[in-house]
Amino acid sequence: MKLYDCKTAPSPRRVRIFAAEKGMQLETVEVDLANGEQFTAAFREINPDCVVPVLELDDGSRITEVLAICQYLEELQPEPAVIGDTPEERASAMMWAIKVEQQGLVAMRDAFRNSAKGLKGHALTGPIGYEQIPELADRGREGAIAFLGRLEQQLADEEFVAGDRYSIADVTALVFVDFAAWIKIDIPDDAMNLKRWYETVSSRPSARA
Amino acid sequence: MKLYDCKTAPSPRRVRIFAAEKGMQLETVEVDLANGEQFTAAFREINPDCVVPVLELDDGSRITEVLAICQYLEELQPEPAVIGDTPEERASAMMWAIKVEQQGLVAMRDAFRNSAKGLKGHALTGPIGYEQIPELADRGREGAIAFLGRLEQQLADEEFVAGDRYSIADVTALVFVDFAAWIKIDIPDDAMNLKRWYETVSSRPSARA
Repeated sequence: MKLYDCKTAPSPRRVRIFAAEKGMQLETVEVDLANGEQFTAAFREINPDCVVPVLELDDGSRITEVLAICQYLEELQPEPAVIGDTPEERASAMMWAIKVEQQGLVAMRDAFRNSAKGLKGHALTGPIGYEQIPELADRGREGAIAFLGRLEQQLADEEFVAGDRYSIADVTALVFVDFAAWIKIDIPDDAMNLKRWYETVSSRPSARA
Repeated sequence: MKLYDCKTAPSPRRVRIFAAEKGMQLETVEVDLANGEQFTAAFREINPDCVVPVLELDDGSRITEVLAICQYLEELQPEPAVIGDTPEERASAMMWAIKVEQQGLVAMRDAFRNSAKGLKGHALTGPIGYEQIPELADRGREGAIAFLGRLEQQLADEEFVAGDRYSIADVTALVFVDFAAWIKIDIPDDAMNLKRWYETVSSRPSARA
């Protein structure tokens, strides 16, 4: 089993942190996104969507999409659970991982990819060259800031994003918060709960994965 | 257990089809999205993201996000499997459900919500009133059409979207294709495999759910 990876990109980092939490060592193959390796014919054979992460199994089949990969890893090695130990825990963790992805990471992706000079003609990942939409960069920035507020509210009630235990929702939220810092969107000074949570999760050894 | 639902909206239809395939009868509560019931204080208590579907459990806890709800229903009643019977089947079905959602349904959402007159100031679901971005409507339309082509390719190799069995990926793709028809994006005449697949999945009793 091996993971097509890129050390600098937010999405594959989610899988690396998840695997580290489970104590799983994954062989990785670095894909040079900065120089467009994802668009080469060789990589399109691996993933026609031209993105990492991709988990390649020993039989040659491949799993893409972060949540599908993490679900698979959790089934291969259930303990320690990073999705959950019960159907209700798993539902809560997946629900929150999806919320963070769709409202946080997607907003950040819009903010970043629609404004970065190096991403002209690549406003979305993938093989189709979409032009940047400046209004979408603004909307993404607004959405990312709003979602930090949503996380602050949630973390006022709960120790971790999906409840009283660390889960895939925290993995996703940590990657979102660190991605937001790329365009100088920081945790607000008065977001005491988010700060407390960030200190806890970013000091776990997995955060360096 | 009850499902907050809306008969006319694509997202809750995914859960209704999924449950129908499993032979599960879910009590539903209709939410009047057309008249803004999702923005009332009463509904915000149920889901602060102001969207359906929401699955409310008997203990009062609530699950949102289609894939988290479907995963939970599959765990409650594993047979017949609509996600999958093995970790590999489940990974493939979830991977494809996410691809269809992110590349198909999201493109359609962008196309529709950024152009429909009735959705001015609601270019995204949720409590924040985002203005429409006409360029994003165009990009969404282009993406939805491109994704129909991707499905045609996939269905040239496979009987169903995620392989040789019906799954949550087909549920999601059926809802995408039917949503695309709202803005007159139809299956291309030469997409023989997509047509064959559509005829099969749309004639299953679950498609009327």
